[in-house]
Amino acid sequence: MAKPKILVTNDDGVEAPGLRKLIEFMRKLGNVYVVASDRIMSGTGHAITVRTPLRVRELHKEAGYEEYVCDGTPVDCAKLGIEVVIGHKPDLLVSGINHGSNASINVIYSGTMAAVLEGCIDDVPSIGFSLLDYSFKAEFNHCEPYVQKIAGNVLEHGLPTGICLNVNIPAVDGEEIKGIKVCRQAKARWVGKFDARRDPAKRDYYWLTGHFENKDEGEDTDQHALENNFVSVVPVHTDLTAHHAISELNNWKLNG
Amino acid sequence: MAKPKILVTNDDGVEAPGLRKLIEFMRKLGNVYVVASDRIMSGTGHAITVRTPLRVRELHKEAGYEEYVCDGTPVDCAKLGIEVVIGHKPDLLVSGINHGSNASINVIYSGTMAAVLEGCIDDVPSIGFSLLDYSFKAEFNHCEPYVQKIAGNVLEHGLPTGICLNVNIPAVDGEEIKGIKVCRQAKARWVGKFDARRDPAKRDYYWLTGHFENKDEGEDTDQHALENNFVSVVPVHTDLTAHHAISELNNWKLNG
Repeated sequence: MAKPKILVTNDDGVEAPGLRKLIEFMRKLGNVYVVASDRIMSGTGHAITVRTPLRVRELHKEAGYEEYVCDGTPVDCAKLGIEVVIGHKPDLLVSGINHGSNASINVIYSGTMAAVLEGCIDDVPSIGFSLLDYSFKAEFNHCEPYVQKIAGNVLEHGLPTGICLNVNIPAVDGEEIKGIKVCRQAKARWVGKFDARRDPAKRDYYWLTGHFENKDEGEDTDQHALENNFVSVVPVHTDLTAHHAISELNNWKLNG
Repeated sequence: MAKPKILVTNDDGVEAPGLRKLIEFMRKLGNVYVVASDRIMSGTGHAITVRTPLRVRELHKEAGYEEYVCDGTPVDCAKLGIEVVIGHKPDLLVSGINHGSNASINVIYSGTMAAVLEGCIDDVPSIGFSLLDYSFKAEFNHCEPYVQKIAGNVLEHGLPTGICLNVNIPAVDGEEIKGIKVCRQAKARWVGKFDARRDPAKRDYYWLTGHFENKDEGEDTDQHALENNFVSVVPVHTDLTAHHAISELNNWKLNG
């Protein structure tokens, strides 16, 4: 039987240790094609490059393994991987392992998950993996059984149409992890603040800072699972419609 | 009674005709604060600037009207407008009027809607307006009654918690518009293709191209409303969870 084709990308750039680990894990499951950005693209959201040309460079090619770097965003990487590098839909797209959480509201800002959503739009079974440790020296080895288990299940079962997965992994010793929980996205947010500073030429500038605030007390959320040392799996889709609000808005006199 | 404070931003940059029109419309409803980018930020998705400092420059200030330009993304503009320029939550955030559709899947790629989602995360009633015409010479005058009606309703009623609005307006003569419809986001997508070219130095590069494909035949979608000359209003939220898929994933043996 032909080995599955697996497209691997991320938003921390081609040299990120999290990407290198994900490549290592995926090579045990199939033929791997890597398309990653030449720069750190963290916080790029669902940006696409439409105003400048994209360049793709081959870094490595052998039987069962190809690696490319490009100058685009994670969404560009996903699109280039499918359309240009592989030339058709892979059996699986994985993005990560991100250095830092993409749970709860972080999914909105995440380049890692943007690549995953793009795969999902293109009907490719797609998973984003993130570790709750921002450090480039983070320890990823304990992620392997969970990454393999979830990716293996998706290769076996596929995913429901229009659904992709947002997987987050606690940054604890492997034996402390209690298992995998399917969750909903917690209603949390970043409370942004700007740090006002003055440069050497006496011009003002601002750095964005902020703290994470979770007022969602549900026990079925990704944040709750992660705080209790479970790996969280949130099924994600690209329909942003707040369906429950449609009837309320229909009570407004918009056509009066 | 104090006039409402209205924050205006967009993703086509401070000079875009659609922004100038939205400012004109909003000045009839309240005190207006404009924070827009110095560049075109179309297709930036929910990008935020965390790795470089942001600069804000005052362009105009008079009683009831202030205008600033910054070097960030639409999400940065929304955050700077709330935190730095106004210093507290405005009564309304509006983004647009975008030159081009943000209906259906476009909401995912849209900088216009990213600013709106950011306002929504910060509990500010927020609306994105888009016209179905990409041209910078587009005609916006027929948008006024619909923009005023929808913004007026939001100022009067507020919005349900966690909900913002994605409003799209057909590019037709004003009298052809049949009214306003509250809709769901159509399940459509862009089928991406890359145009492979070679530069004068004989290096390959790619331009992203593509066509829009809508296989959603529902009569309750934004695409259907727009094709029938209605203004579409989709209530949007930041919860990407595909709630209906949770039970299906729980059937997988993830902890076996």
